[in-house]
Amino acid sequence: MAKICFGIDVGGTTVKCGMFTTDGTLLDKWEITTRTENGGENVLPDIAATVISKLRLKGYKDEDCAGIGVGIPGPVMRGVVPVAVNLHWGEKNVEYELSQLTGMKVRAANDANVAALGEAWKGGGEGKKEIIVVTLGTGVGGGIIIDGTIVEGLHGAGGEIGHMHVDDNITALCNCGHSGCLEQVASATGIARLAREELALHPEYTGDLRTGEVTAKAVFDAYKEDDPLATRVVNRFAKYLGTALANIAVVIDPEIIVIGGGVSRAGECLTDIVGNYYRSIAFSSCANTPIVLARLGNDAGIYGAAKLVLGKL
Amino acid sequence: MAKICFGIDVGGTTVKCGMFTTDGTLLDKWEITTRTENGGENVLPDIAATVISKLRLKGYKDEDCAGIGVGIPGPVMRGVVPVAVNLHWGEKNVEYELSQLTGMKVRAANDANVAALGEAWKGGGEGKKEIIVVTLGTGVGGGIIIDGTIVEGLHGAGGEIGHMHVDDNITALCNCGHSGCLEQVASATGIARLAREELALHPEYTGDLRTGEVTAKAVFDAYKEDDPLATRVVNRFAKYLGTALANIAVVIDPEIIVIGGGVSRAGECLTDIVGNYYRSIAFSSCANTPIVLARLGNDAGIYGAAKLVLGKL
Repeated sequence: MAKICFGIDVGGTTVKCGMFTTDGTLLDKWEITTRTENGGENVLPDIAATVISKLRLKGYKDEDCAGIGVGIPGPVMRGVVPVAVNLHWGEKNVEYELSQLTGMKVRAANDANVAALGEAWKGGGEGKKEIIVVTLGTGVGGGIIIDGTIVEGLHGAGGEIGHMHVDDNITALCNCGHSGCLEQVASATGIARLAREELALHPEYTGDLRTGEVTAKAVFDAYKEDDPLATRVVNRFAKYLGTALANIAVVIDPEIIVIGGGVSRAGECLTDIVGNYYRSIAFSSCANTPIVLARLGNDAGIYGAAKLVLGKL
Repeated sequence: MAKICFGIDVGGTTVKCGMFTTDGTLLDKWEITTRTENGGENVLPDIAATVISKLRLKGYKDEDCAGIGVGIPGPVMRGVVPVAVNLHWGEKNVEYELSQLTGMKVRAANDANVAALGEAWKGGGEGKKEIIVVTLGTGVGGGIIIDGTIVEGLHGAGGEIGHMHVDDNITALCNCGHSGCLEQVASATGIARLAREELALHPEYTGDLRTGEVTAKAVFDAYKEDDPLATRVVNRFAKYLGTALANIAVVIDPEIIVIGGGVSRAGECLTDIVGNYYRSIAFSSCANTPIVLARLGNDAGIYGAAKLVLGKL
């Protein structure tokens, strides 16, 4: 019976690697460089080499390993990536190729979905099987877990919460080509944009956000000090996000909602205010669904990748 | 090996019953009265009696029957109804009680979800496993099918699409206690409400909707004749519904979207205009997801109930 498995989180500059017991204890983690030259041809061979080398180094045999899970920065449908710009890949059958290179079972999925699965397994959603995970970083990503499994979707777009349409009045274009997306008002860059809007609307304001750098972190820091402009920005952000989460909740009625990503480092003041708006809008059956912070930080990807190859929650 | 099964769609006044082959051919359908007196104590015994009687009448043995699926007008969680107002029920374990009465396997779920499963199995979504079904009737209901299974949700609120929040400017209360719900602008009553709003806003209008009864059917009939007020109403309806569907699609990325219910009798002019708004807003990966009309009409519930007991799509 297999004792260990690997969780691999592939990024555009580094590949995060984890070796886990099959019950989810992280035994070792390390990183290798993502070599994207020549169409990213080395990425999978490098992963194969580091996994095999770690397995040997720790004295395990191939049959001790349940397999390798991989998170990829791009859409993934049934193990196949149609294109992954950051890795310089065109279409690539990740599961087949890495399995050929290692002789092991391989499962691959989108990195945001995999990170969501990690939080579901050993993070903020631990013990639950029906989960919304939303990740507030440079963009807004997420993952939907139903019956212990990632909702991948026909085109790999499952959990693309950041591109829910939330406001007709936003004219600036989102990276997706539309406008009015949740990402434009709830990501770190979106929160900074809302703050710049409020600064322009309120010339009388002379607080910290007028003089310092306008970032999501600065906004939440000022919010914690009851800064009036930051309070307006955080309320706008929280209303958008709370409404979007209520609209997902009434469709899938999850057990828990987990908020992660860099913006979530603001802490419980964030889940508190998003929760207030959520509860004011959510369908009564779902109004008490807990909204909690993610717990695994940057390790969510390797945890989720490991769980991907181990099977459903 | 079982040859047949029963699909039962329980309503507040009648119980629709169907006998099916296990591959989905409807062999017989009939109705019985829903006896709601005395806390609805007769409802399940009446179903048991009609099923057993039909089985005997057609010359089948108990072992020929794969079981009984039941759609219930109320939330259902793992076979248990917490309350079903229209049946005068408090908490009732439908699967256990009906199984005790018949000796057969029983599966129960919410009627809107069951109707969605019917459309997924033998209706507009036939052959697909990841489906959004939205039902535009007096209210707006629906069902989400993921991996061939209904998303029931923790509180039985899965697929309650009608209570997505779509407009902050609506002040009238929805039946759910909130305001701004999709149901208030996309149900038959909601469309009539939008028409009355437009009539008040446009005193110069003297067309059919000024003189006749203002119903969703009248609005769509006038829309087909290029009536300007009806065109405004249908565009507002279609923008709301198209946006809501785009926001669900980017979360679960389905294979197909099916629109049913009385309002959908307007036909392809409805899916055409909803599709136009949907495509203008949907995340690029999901923008070409087909939007089709439901096909089973009032039989969706018995088909879906039958499929419920047969297992996933």
